[in-house]
Amino acid sequence: MELLRQRILAEGKCFEGGILKVDSFINHQMDPQLMMAVAGEFMKRFTGAGVNKILTIEASGIAPAIMVGYLMKLPVVFAKKKKPSTMENMLATTVYSFTKRRDYDVCVCRDYLGKDDRVLFIDDFLANGNAARGIMDLVRQAGAELAGMGFIIEKEFQHGREALTEAGVRVESLAIIESLDNCTIKIRQ
Amino acid sequence: MELLRQRILAEGKCFEGGILKVDSFINHQMDPQLMMAVAGEFMKRFTGAGVNKILTIEASGIAPAIMVGYLMKLPVVFAKKKKPSTMENMLATTVYSFTKRRDYDVCVCRDYLGKDDRVLFIDDFLANGNAARGIMDLVRQAGAELAGMGFIIEKEFQHGREALTEAGVRVESLAIIESLDNCTIKIRQ
Repeated sequence: MELLRQRILAEGKCFEGGILKVDSFINHQMDPQLMMAVAGEFMKRFTGAGVNKILTIEASGIAPAIMVGYLMKLPVVFAKKKKPSTMENMLATTVYSFTKRRDYDVCVCRDYLGKDDRVLFIDDFLANGNAARGIMDLVRQAGAELAGMGFIIEKEFQHGREALTEAGVRVESLAIIESLDNCTIKIRQ
Repeated sequence: MELLRQRILAEGKCFEGGILKVDSFINHQMDPQLMMAVAGEFMKRFTGAGVNKILTIEASGIAPAIMVGYLMKLPVVFAKKKKPSTMENMLATTVYSFTKRRDYDVCVCRDYLGKDDRVLFIDDFLANGNAARGIMDLVRQAGAELAGMGFIIEKEFQHGREALTEAGVRVESLAIIESLDNCTIKIRQ
């Protein structure tokens, strides 16, 4: 997606350890027009995939996911990163975050994810794929089907896609970062 | 907002202690078409208020805020509930959550909130107003102006509005819950 590619090159910032910050338009400040364009691209790629629900994880996945849900006229569920005190009837899984160097729980209420759901998972980043594998586990526990996963930015050099495609999951990323070596952003053409 | 009012009466669930759960369309599963309608109503109410930035708090504020930003063609910043390891140059404040019975930090990067900003804060709930007062503090620290605050649902019986209007803040709520006594939802006409 050329619009996104140009924006990452113009505003993305590299840090040691393969970190790419896109805080000015995706992760902290967000550009809603870009989010809608991103959602339009996801819709185009997943049209015909039989999706009936959009799933994401709080917090940075919510903006693109709600836009996809709006365009596709589908409900959007966001998985929570800790168990809410008022939530019962929950599915939960544990995800290890390399960035934060700790485990966290991801949970979703069974009322909103079940065997009649065919899910499109939307998130901001695909890195090592730990969060995405957590989502696969939640979808499996719910007895739902996973129609695919869409990421705004994939850090290809962190190999998250491999385990997903090996498990038969369709993965679509709108910008694929080949490397951040020497703090230079190299995006696939 | 009648559409919202009907939805709360149809799907909202009361719990002891003045808790209203709207998990099926706002707080966990979200209805994107309703979110866009909510955003349209906020835009109508705040047209002419000179807003140049939308501010919210993760996670449930993000969906309505990104829709407002989309309609008003303005950037959206979401304040974070804990200090990210990679964020520098931060403004922070502490908020006490009655629901969770603990303090949490709310922070925003100075790069995205400053003296040239005239901010519209959007959130899902106004209850006792602690989070909103935390936002007022962040806006003040940033040297920005607060043009107003818009909430999808206000729990009037928890009196959050009082301190805000006393401080001169314009508050707009799209559904005002008068009481949840005897687990009956009473919404202002």
